Order: sequence, then structure tokens, then C-alpha cells
Amino acid sequence: SKTYNIAVIPGDGIGKEVTPWAQKALEKAAEGVADFTYEHFDLGAERYLRDGAILPDDELERIKTTDAILLGAIGDPRIKAGILERGLLLKLRFSLDQYVNLRPSKLYQGVTSPLANPGDIDFVVVREGTEGLYCGAGGAVRRDTPAEVATEVSINTAYGVERVVRYAFELAMKRRRHITLVHKKNVLINAGDMWQRIVDKVGQEYPEVTCDYSHIDAATIYLVSDPSRFDVILTDNLFGDILTDEAGAVVGGVGYSASGCINASNEYPSMFEPIHGSAPDIAGQNKANPTAAILSAAMLLEHLGFDEAAQRIHKAVEADIAELGSTVRSTDEVGRDILARM
Amino acid sequence: SKTYNIAVIPGDGIGKEVTPWAQKALEKAAEGVADFTYEHFDLGAERYLRDGAILPDDELERIKTTDAILLGAIGDPRIKAGILERGLLLKLRFSLDQYVNLRPSKLYQGVTSPLANPGDIDFVVVREGTEGLYCGAGGAVRRDTPAEVATEVSINTAYGVERVVRYAFELAMKRRRHITLVHKKNVLINAGDMWQRIVDKVGQEYPEVTCDYSHIDAATIYLVSDPSRFDVILTDNLFGDILTDEAGAVVGGVGYSASGCINASNEYPSMFEPIHGSAPDIAGQNKANPTAAILSAAMLLEHLGFDEAAQRIHKAVEADIAELGSTVRSTDEVGRDILARM
Ligand SMILES: CC(C)[C@H](C(=O)O)[C@@H](O)C(=O)O
Ligand SMILES: CC(C)[C@H](C(=O)O)[C@@H](O)C(=O)O
Repeated sequence: SKTYNIAVIPGDGIGKEVTPWAQKALEKAAEGVADFTYEHFDLGAERYLRDGAILPDDELERIKTTDAILLGAIGDPRIKAGILERGLLLKLRFSLDQYVNLRPSKLYQGVTSPLANPGDIDFVVVREGTEGLYCGAGGAVRRDTPAEVATEVSINTAYGVERVVRYAFELAMKRRRHITLVHKKNVLINAGDMWQRIVDKVGQEYPEVTCDYSHIDAATIYLVSDPSRFDVILTDNLFGDILTDEAGAVVGGVGYSASGCINASNEYPSMFEPIHGSAPDIAGQNKANPTAAILSAAMLLEHLGFDEAAQRIHKAVEADIAELGSTVRSTDEVGRDILARM
Repeated sequence: SKTYNIAVIPGDGIGKEVTPWAQKALEKAAEGVADFTYEHFDLGAERYLRDGAILPDDELERIKTTDAILLGAIGDPRIKAGILERGLLLKLRFSLDQYVNLRPSKLYQGVTSPLANPGDIDFVVVREGTEGLYCGAGGAVRRDTPAEVATEVSINTAYGVERVVRYAFELAMKRRRHITLVHKKNVLINAGDMWQRIVDKVGQEYPEVTCDYSHIDAATIYLVSDPSRFDVILTDNLFGDILTDEAGAVVGGVGYSASGCINASNEYPSMFEPIHGSAPDIAGQNKANPTAAILSAAMLLEHLGFDEAAQRIHKAVEADIAELGSTVRSTDEVGRDILARM
């Protein structure tokens, strides 16, 4: 049977503390089912400060040959905002054409939501991952003068939108068959109109799926006032970034939220990461919750087709949270507790 | 003493039901203090459907001669998204150079927040109102083909940013002296970097004001997990739109949230409006809460320098909510109840 080669990129801050637990959970869940080898990549702030490298071409080429990627978190306060995020994290997402950024949100039993009446929260955000305002198009003239002008350009293509729309409809068919398109089409009329037209067109092939639409501003209200209305939220790169962080808060903290950056045509490896950041304020203190990272290992397993192995992780995480979700534990304690249940 | 001429634009849907109450509250609060005359403008969906006019030049010119504007809400499901929003609402904001979009959020005593532990919420969002992704720059090629490309361009100028930054610092000096800049400078590096540099520069003139920074995604988390951390939130046009709707939800519904679109250099009239939309689902049913519209009349009075008259409205609204906030009442009942307390 095939051996899967996994690229491991712990990255920065708490990424270094939670990623080893994601790897251990992956290994344990797949025992007797799949064989993994791991290739570690020393990428992130330390590396950049040491030798100036962010994502060298030869390392990107090696990553491209792997079967999947486990990523921790990227970002460090010592380094100007954008350098690592764009040079490493977004460069991976774009170079590997990870056009589906899949972000499930679920309120686990045992977790306290900040909402007084959260209801039954269980939805998935399908965020486009390779277009929009994340392209890096834009610039500035007369920088640092009173006449400075800075632009950011959102580029959206029918090619890029249609493929992620199709993914969302396929996903909806496996769930409660409801899609909410989120955009701001009353202001961003060019991009918003294209998104809506493509959803309408593809939707004709899926008569069982009901679709509605919400402006991004209204969607942030619904996440607080009525989050259980959502099944599949389909949106662009920036709105997806915003909504999934708010969703993370609503389900009791981004510590439980995993994500997949998926190349659904499998030309390049997909990447799995917690949605939380590097959290410099608590880094190195054995405090970060590794649950989101461990859940990202489950998403990796699902992506490779090992649904039962993924279920082992999901079940262990659910049981752990139900029993000990409100107990203060260290990173290693949570990791050990979850592994012990698998 | 001077007579102030107020343009009244009820607009669409519930805008038509709540704006008369804003006008009545304005009139009553200013009794013995200031004289108002009113000029009504028939603008919005009905007008557009009747004669195709959105905001004719001569009407815009008449609006420019007024002292302030009371606006209800714009938007109608019968009309393609964007036509009225951009042709009327945004055209007013841009033509009248209303560069400060001021949006206070306060959790009133007697209102139930959807948050389990909301804490003491009292902050103001200072949203830039004339730049960013709202410029209408952008377009599409090969529309409706598989090769379509649609763009949206965010234009940001040092001129436009510095004036709203200065406004935020002046406002912070009258409040708790804390500003949180919200942007996404790890991705939108051109615009984000400019905003941060200008905040840093202007901040040197205000050593008493502490400043911090939050990415937009993290800010949506804080609004749910710890909203009392905020005093003045300073942000761009799109992020301000998103954050103020979420903030409205967190303080118990956008029914309590008013806003001012302010030309702080007073070359053109400023405009006051509830932040809620036209709510077609409940329009014409005497159900909409007029409190936000009434509070926008208070903001108008403050803007014209009638602080005591504004306080009359604030006190009446506070007392009304404290006593009857959780009672189901019609638009007219709430309006009458508030006016009776003034
Ligand atoms: C770190 C940042 C560039 C990234 C994003 O904006 O996509 C993060 O917020 C995320 O959601 O994965
Ligand atoms: C109607 C729409 C164009 C408007 C905006 O996006 O500014 C509204 O959402 C608001 O917040 O005033």
C-alpha cells in the first residue's frame, strides 16, 4: 500500500506547539490504515530572521511533491505585517492553487458559546482561496507624502469563481442542501454580480439545493443573532476570512476551528491548518489549545479518503470537549487527553 | 435667530415609517431653541420605478443648500442591487464629501444583548466615508462568458485618510482616549501601511491618546468576546460597514443604532440616518422600531451645536428603553412613547 508523504510546517508562535500534536493524532488515527512519512520544513519568522529566506523555490518545489501539508500558524510581531503572510502563507495557497478554503464551524457539546442562546451551530464556510483582494494587485504612489495614493485591487474571474461554486454545491448535496452566498453586491457591483450570476447558473444543475444571498454586513449580524440558519456559506477570499473568525468566536473560540486549503483538482497538495494565528502573547507557554490543529489532521485524513481514521479523531475530540472542555489544561495535557481516547 | 432648513429623505421600506418620527423628535427637542423648516425629497424606489429618476442634478443642488439631511433607508428588492445604493445613498455621501461616517454603539439598560456576558458596551466607529472599495472603481470584461474578469478597486489617499484620522483623535480626546485602528494590513499592504503610518504620525500630536491595531478578522472576534475593550474604532469604508452591523447585533439589534455621515469641514450638509436598511420583509406593517431614526435626529442636533436639545432625545430614549425595551410595540407606539417623555 502507498506511503503518504506529509509536509509539516509548524511556522511561528503557538504553531510550533500545536503542530506536533496534529502530527501525533494523524499518526495514531491512521494506524493500520495508512502509512505516513513526514518532511519538516523550517519556514517562518525564525528562519527569516536567521537567513532572510521566506519560501525558497527549491523548498516550494519539494512541498509540491508531497501528498498533503500540515501547517501551524504564520506571523511574528518582530516582522512587518505582510512579509511572512504574503511571502509564505499566501504564496503557498496561491502557488498550490488551493482554491477552496474550507472552514467548518460547529458548536461542540461542552463548549460555552459567548452567545446567550447559540442554538445548534453547524455550518461550513467555503471561502475562495486564490482570488479577490488577496491577489497582491495594488500599489502606492508618492509614498509617505501628503499626496500619497494607495490602491488594492480585487481580481475575480469566472474561471476561479465557478470552480469554487461547484465545490460548494457538491458539498451542500452531502449536507442540508442549503447555500448562502455572501457578498456586498449592492456596492461591489462588478464582482458581486458575477458571483450571483454564476451561483444562479450552477444552481440550475442542483435543483435540490436552495440558495439565498446575504450582504456581508447582514451576515455578521446573523452569525450573532441566528447562526443556526446557515448550512453552507459560500463567499470570497476577504469576506471568508472575516466571517470565519467571527464564526470561530461564536462557537466558543478559534481554538476549535480547523481549516483546509484545498486544491480540489489534486494537481498540488492541499494544506490543513487551524484557523487561529501564531498568538505571540501566549506562545512558548504550553497554553495554546491544540484541538484545532488536531482537527486539521482529521480534515487531512478525510481529504486523502480515510474517513474512518478521520472519525477516530472527531470522536476523541468530541468526547474530550464534552468531558473536559471547560477545564484549564496545558497544550500537552489536551494533546495527551485526546490521543488517549483514540 | 437662524432658521435651519432640513432635507428629509424617507427613502424606501421602513424608512418611510421611521423618518416621520425622527422629524417629530427633532421638532420637539428643539422647541424654544432652534427653528427648523423641512424640505421633503421624493427619492428612492417608488420614484425610480415611476419616472426613472434616482438623484437628479437639480435635486442634489437643492439638497446642497440645506443645513442637514434626515435620511431613512434606501433599497428595494424590486430593483437590482446597487442601483439605488450607489446612485442615491452613496452618491449623496460622495457628492457631499461626507468623509466621517460616525456610528456609536451602546448597550442600553433594558436591552437584551445576544451575548451571555456583554459587559459595558460603549464605543464609536469612525468609518471613512468617501474612499476605499466604495469609489465605484472597477469593471468587468467578457461579461457573462467563462472568460469573464471582474475587478473592484480600493482607492485610498493620504488626503482622505488623514482628515478622518484627525477627526478620530479629536473624538477620542472627548472620550476615553483610546483608538483601535482596524484594517487588514497583513494582506492589504499598500492601503494598510498608509493607514498605519498616518495614525502613527497624527498620534504624535495626541500623546494622551493610546492607539492599538487589530486586523478586521480579529476585530469581529473581539466584538463578540470582549466588546467593552473598544472606545474609538477607526477604520475604512468597507470594514466600517461590516463592523457596525456586527456591533448593532451585539448591542441588541440595529434598531438602536444611528449614524451620521459628516462633512466635518461643513462645506456641504451632513446626513443622519439609522444604520438599519429598508427591511422590505416588515415594511408597511407599522412594526419597525423608530428608535434608531430618532437617535439620528439627536446626532443631527449635536452636529448643529444643540447639545442640550440632543440630550432631551437621548434621555427620553434611554428612559423608554429601560422601561419598555422588551415590550413588543408598533412603530407609532414607540414613537409616541418616546415623544411623550421629551
Ligand atoms: C494570516 C492571514 C494572511 C490569513 C488570511 O487572511 O487568510 C489568516 O487570517 C487566515 O484566515 O488564514
Ligand atoms: C446600503 C449600503 C450601500 C450601505 C453601505 O454599505 O454603506 C449600508 O450598508 C450602510 O451601512 O449604510
